[in-house]
Amino acid sequence: TIYVVTPTYARLVQKAELTRLSLTLLHVPRLHWIVVEDSPQPTPLVRDLLAVSGLAYTHLHVPTPKDMKLQEKDPTWLKPRGVEQRNEAMRWLREMAAAAAVEQAVVYFADDDNTYSLKVFEEMRFTQRVSVWPVGLVGGMRYEGPVVENGKVVRFHTGWRPSRPFPIDMAGFAVSLRLVVAHPGARFDRSAQIGFLESSLLQGLVTMKELEPKADMCTKILVWHTRTEKPKIKREEIMQKQGMGSDLNVEV
Amino acid sequence: TIYVVTPTYARLVQKAELTRLSLTLLHVPRLHWIVVEDSPQPTPLVRDLLAVSGLAYTHLHVPTPKDMKLQEKDPTWLKPRGVEQRNEAMRWLREMAAAAAVEQAVVYFADDDNTYSLKVFEEMRFTQRVSVWPVGLVGGMRYEGPVVENGKVVRFHTGWRPSRPFPIDMAGFAVSLRLVVAHPGARFDRSAQIGFLESSLLQGLVTMKELEPKADMCTKILVWHTRTEKPKIKREEIMQKQGMGSDLNVEV
Ligand SMILES: O=c1ccn([C@@H]2O[C@H](COP(=O)(O)OP(=O)(O)O)[C@@H](O)[C@H]2O)c(=O)[nH]1
Ligand SMILES: O=c1ccn([C@@H]2O[C@H](COP(=O)(O)OP(=O)(O)O)[C@@H](O)[C@H]2O)c(=O)[nH]1
Ligand SMILES: [Mn+2]
Ligand SMILES: [Mn+2]
Repeated sequence: TIYVVTPTYARLVQKAELTRLSLTLLHVPRLHWIVVEDSPQPTPLVRDLLAVSGLAYTHLHVPTPKDMKLQEKDPTWLKPRGVEQRNEAMRWLREMAAAAAVEQAVVYFADDDNTYSLKVFEEMRFTQRVSVWPVGLVGGMRYEGPVVENGKVVRFHTGWRPSRPFPIDMAGFAVSLRLVVAHPGARFDRSAQIGFLESSLLQGLVTMKELEPKADMCTKILVWHTRTEKPKIKREEIMQKQGMGSDLNVEV
Repeated sequence: TIYVVTPTYARLVQKAELTRLSLTLLHVPRLHWIVVEDSPQPTPLVRDLLAVSGLAYTHLHVPTPKDMKLQEKDPTWLKPRGVEQRNEAMRWLREMAAAAAVEQAVVYFADDDNTYSLKVFEEMRFTQRVSVWPVGLVGGMRYEGPVVENGKVVRFHTGWRPSRPFPIDMAGFAVSLRLVVAHPGARFDRSAQIGFLESSLLQGLVTMKELEPKADMCTKILVWHTRTEKPKIKREEIMQKQGMGSDLNVEV
């Protein structure tokens, strides 16, 4: 089973993002979607979407503490996003694994706005410890990814601080569930420096030598770090003042 | 059959966009994807993507004339986009329909960056002339769409020039192929005023009274006018100058 962990938060494009991501995941056999809302309560929008998705899923929620939450005016890189949510998913996974004997299973952290090919899921399916591959359109580069020599990862192609322990985007690795269970303390560190969030988890799990290169020795781009524009709804505000706004009962 | 017409052009996110759109379309039965590249030649990227997509498709191309092409610095609303490409698809459809007896079929103009639920395709499948429904996150509004009274479209909910003949986004209607064939002169007018592109086609095909409201009398949002951020690749440029850029043979 591939456990796909998706942190998500309420915003105008949320339903659109989760809709298209769910339609990608729906093509993948033996997949379980763990959606973790960044909210104090589960929301009807996400609950209903999951219920009709046709996917096997678990619906969790945990709010990001207020002081860690990105504010409207903040640049997006200022604070890590989705940290508590991914840790909550790992908590659930460890609990689930303790209760039931889990066979070959793998955990993948898939943000709601990225673009995934079906191939990336087949590449990660047989992960012993941690498998890795390049990610397109990330870090100010066409792509970033591991550099492989003689079948081993020897360094990383990245435009920024290649000396980080694991300069890999969240979308560029998967972890075997067994490893997550074997290291109960491993987690994303919400106070990690910018760019060190992935390292904060992986350092506790694996060494560079042990990484398993996928996607034709890390030469194929099978996942893209796309971001969706925030819609401008200036006209909506004007219309609402005139009493002609959109019906707020219509879910967008 | 649903003929889905998608104009597309080369840019960093093109493969990502077409990948996720293709994965949505792959869930829809009896669908034929007409991808029309805005280019003087078909490109290998699109050709290869279509070949492995698993979809029934037709691959066309026609470049937008230079004077109509949006320039790097232009605001996106300055010139209509995808016009020649959609007209080229209609040319192909009419030719195809003349050669073979085409049954119940419908034409839908689906940009490569929008988000589609599966339901929207089922709603449009039984279109007599022109069916319509609301579109989310468009026109500066939460959604825009037809207003239905007693089963008929009586006006349009829009934040801008509601007096336009058909103030409907491209993603908000589908046309029966029979109607397209019966009106060989109907086409998108590339010199239409801003916001009048959809009207330029629909005026030649249908009246407001004849519109067929779908999506629960136009009360459900089944498609979203999402837009994808243009990736910043500043670091790539710096790295390339240092001879450490990404391998340009790796397709992103
Ligand atoms: O306040 C927030 C902001 C983001 N996210 C989620 O965290 C992940 C990463 O966020 P984002 O895509 O904005 O990060 P970036 O694109 O900048 O890497 C996504 O799945 C978001 O839905 C979240 O749960 N709470
Ligand atoms: O020079 C261009 C710009 C856009 N498009 C295509 O035309 C459609 C509409 O363009 P876009 O999504 O940029 O328009 P908007 O989001 O502003 O409505 C999309 O399928 C694009 O891929 C194109 O073929 N050539
Ligand atoms: Mn993101
Ligand atoms: Mn668009």
